[in-house]
Amino acid sequence: MNKIKIGLLGCGTVGSGVIQALEKNKATIAAKVGAELEITKVLVRDINKKRDLKNGTISFTCNIDEIINDPEIKIVVEVMGGISPAKEYVLQALKHGKSVVTANKDLMALHGKDLFEAANLGNVDLRFEASVGGGIPIIGPLKTSLAGNQILKVVGIINGTTNYILTKMAKEKSEFNKVLAEAQRLGYAESDPTADIEGLDAARKIAILASIAFNSRVTFPKVYVEGITKITTRDICYANELGYTIKLLGIAQQNNGTIEVRVHPAFIPNEHPLAKVDDVFNAIYVQGDAVGDAMFYGRGAGQLPTASAVIGDLMEVARNLTQGIFDKSYCTCFEHKEIKPFREIKTKYYLRLTVPDRPGVLASIASVFAQHEVSIASVVQKRKTKQAAELVLITHLVKEAYLQDALSAIQDLPFVTQINNVIRVEDLDDEVRVGE
Amino acid sequence: MNKIKIGLLGCGTVGSGVIQALEKNKATIAAKVGAELEITKVLVRDINKKRDLKNGTISFTCNIDEIINDPEIKIVVEVMGGISPAKEYVLQALKHGKSVVTANKDLMALHGKDLFEAANLGNVDLRFEASVGGGIPIIGPLKTSLAGNQILKVVGIINGTTNYILTKMAKEKSEFNKVLAEAQRLGYAESDPTADIEGLDAARKIAILASIAFNSRVTFPKVYVEGITKITTRDICYANELGYTIKLLGIAQQNNGTIEVRVHPAFIPNEHPLAKVDDVFNAIYVQGDAVGDAMFYGRGAGQLPTASAVIGDLMEVARNLTQGIFDKSYCTCFEHKEIKPFREIKTKYYLRLTVPDRPGVLASIASVFAQHEVSIASVVQKRKTKQAAELVLITHLVKEAYLQDALSAIQDLPFVTQINNVIRVEDLDDEVRVGE
Repeated sequence: MNKIKIGLLGCGTVGSGVIQALEKNKATIAAKVGAELEITKVLVRDINKKRDLKNGTISFTCNIDEIINDPEIKIVVEVMGGISPAKEYVLQALKHGKSVVTANKDLMALHGKDLFEAANLGNVDLRFEASVGGGIPIIGPLKTSLAGNQILKVVGIINGTTNYILTKMAKEKSEFNKVLAEAQRLGYAESDPTADIEGLDAARKIAILASIAFNSRVTFPKVYVEGITKITTRDICYANELGYTIKLLGIAQQNNGTIEVRVHPAFIPNEHPLAKVDDVFNAIYVQGDAVGDAMFYGRGAGQLPTASAVIGDLMEVARNLTQGIFDKSYCTCFEHKEIKPFREIKTKYYLRLTVPDRPGVLASIASVFAQHEVSIASVVQKRKTKQAAELVLITHLVKEAYLQDALSAIQDLPFVTQINNVIRVEDLDDEVRVGE
Repeated sequence: MNKIKIGLLGCGTVGSGVIQALEKNKATIAAKVGAELEITKVLVRDINKKRDLKNGTISFTCNIDEIINDPEIKIVVEVMGGISPAKEYVLQALKHGKSVVTANKDLMALHGKDLFEAANLGNVDLRFEASVGGGIPIIGPLKTSLAGNQILKVVGIINGTTNYILTKMAKEKSEFNKVLAEAQRLGYAESDPTADIEGLDAARKIAILASIAFNSRVTFPKVYVEGITKITTRDICYANELGYTIKLLGIAQQNNGTIEVRVHPAFIPNEHPLAKVDDVFNAIYVQGDAVGDAMFYGRGAGQLPTASAVIGDLMEVARNLTQGIFDKSYCTCFEHKEIKPFREIKTKYYLRLTVPDRPGVLASIASVFAQHEVSIASVVQKRKTKQAAELVLITHLVKEAYLQDALSAIQDLPFVTQINNVIRVEDLDDEVRVGE
């Protein structure tokens, strides 16, 4: 049987998972591909580090050229992460006629265009299923089974760390900082958790999904991002009273040829399938014009789930190699759709304000909202202290710009008002309002 | 741009959905495939029937030969359903060098082997994503993104009619016959509902999924099948009291190189993601050795969801045609695993018995179970009438054979015992017990 030789860039958690999983299911993988997949060289930072790998055919190197210039290596797997030097290495591999499988969301969300151009020039494949949702098949289904649909909406819980934190906060009524510290202790959050808790990781992933779903390139800097650091158990309790769960969502939708793309915490109805996606699990909910609603659920990170996605891609690329082809049209960003300015986006809002507990206050606030075309769907007023009350409002759909203007005006009211929190409300089962 | 001509067999609900969805997204589909997909001929039963199709290029025929012998037609889409004449037509198309996309679960679950052999002989593709789970991408992901996994378990809610009925029974506390009649009125159940309510439809689908998941052919007659006609609201209430939901499941798992495959109603824990799959929605839960737990959720039937899957397949086949290749190794049944006899299978059970309400009865029953190695996890006794009590038991894991023997022995006890219902309990998050 033919052998297809593979170079692996990076031998951390994911890299060693790929080696391990590929070795374990070697025989069936070969039978499915029609060729044996063999990792021959691995690029590492420290060549002297002890590695517990039972694969005798692998040689380690610190020199990328040993992989790039090896004519026997047909596929390069990049699991180093980060932009530099991963970008240069991937570009070099593609230019040298090697197909690339990458798990690198940072890279794909920023430089997808350059990489695909290099892949097409090199007549090779570029695959990146593992860059979104870990082991969950989502890029593949969007590009194949669902390819005949016009995708209207993609909504994902695509960061395991923040979902773990929000789930724990809700179940244990613990505040953010305490749960974050616990997540760090358990290894669910990194020592520098910024990329996760500020929503940047999710933003990269939704940029990738939006590009695929809408056939138009969306890069990471185009995504509006807000993290979960301001969420309190008080907000979670009010959400619960109102029939909602708070999740960090990546949302991408198209409407009249323009694209909305954003990451922020949101109230979602308890009955929605996404509301039940707990702990480190991820899920991506897709709405297509033919398929209707579909959802993909699983482990969005971790050594073996990520390896599962990488190996799925490796097998596809290897099948193409055995057939002597590559998938020139794998990149589907052949349209150019505008991205809607964030201030133009319409959502509903949950607002929590502290106001003086005396007659006329609610009327003044309601009047400010009315002046700014913010229509209120419900208000609950709770006594907080002797002098202060807490107002919990849910708005109807309103333009972001109007809401922000209304909040500024409320800050200027003659009595002291504290805006405790502002969180978007996504009903999700709303039909996309085409033409609105 | 190249045109790829397509013959469509059948123009009922799904067939007209395919025409409609293909027409609607024509331009983007062509851009993704690199060729225009054009349905040129449609096989119908009644050529004089009025059809509201806005596609002018289609000609209708009652003669299969006009499609089979048309050298311009490269792909045949079969959405007639049933075994005959669909099987003959598909085989003829494959032999004439036409790739086939089918939505026909009956055919694939019974004659998959013959059809794949014909496809390989004809150097053409055979695809069938729409045969399981309607629009939900599941066959594609198992064959690509998850292909590097050893799949341990596939558990699906794969029949929308029965899921609708069970959901309604639970929500409205209505009995089976009443809900079935309502489902028939609403078009969610057919006038002859046998294939759905007796589990046959689900059995065909789990046979197809098992074949793909375990690389070994499983045909419909090998699947143990039990339907939902014996489920009562009383069982649903007890399930609820015990923290369970009743669903009709298709279950396939492999264990030590043998396969278990069955369809029956089951208690599943309320916290499991499958327990929240309601109404006509379907979901397929997959456990792989690398990916861990994954779930695929969506509309398991209906005109456009099914068309979505058919068109996804069409696009794949068309891409292969433009590259001059076909996927010879799409059929992955290259292993031969035994199917475990049903009496050897171990599950937990819920048992509901009516017994005389007097001392010693429970002791006698418990002793019969003990003699047959049926270990009881919990018992609840409820007064039913003055003379009779209802016993609700949950067993530990026990071999089907032992449980059946115990139930026969209970029937032979000197006092009258009525076995009201026996339903399996699936905890689902149990690790597959390798080696047990």
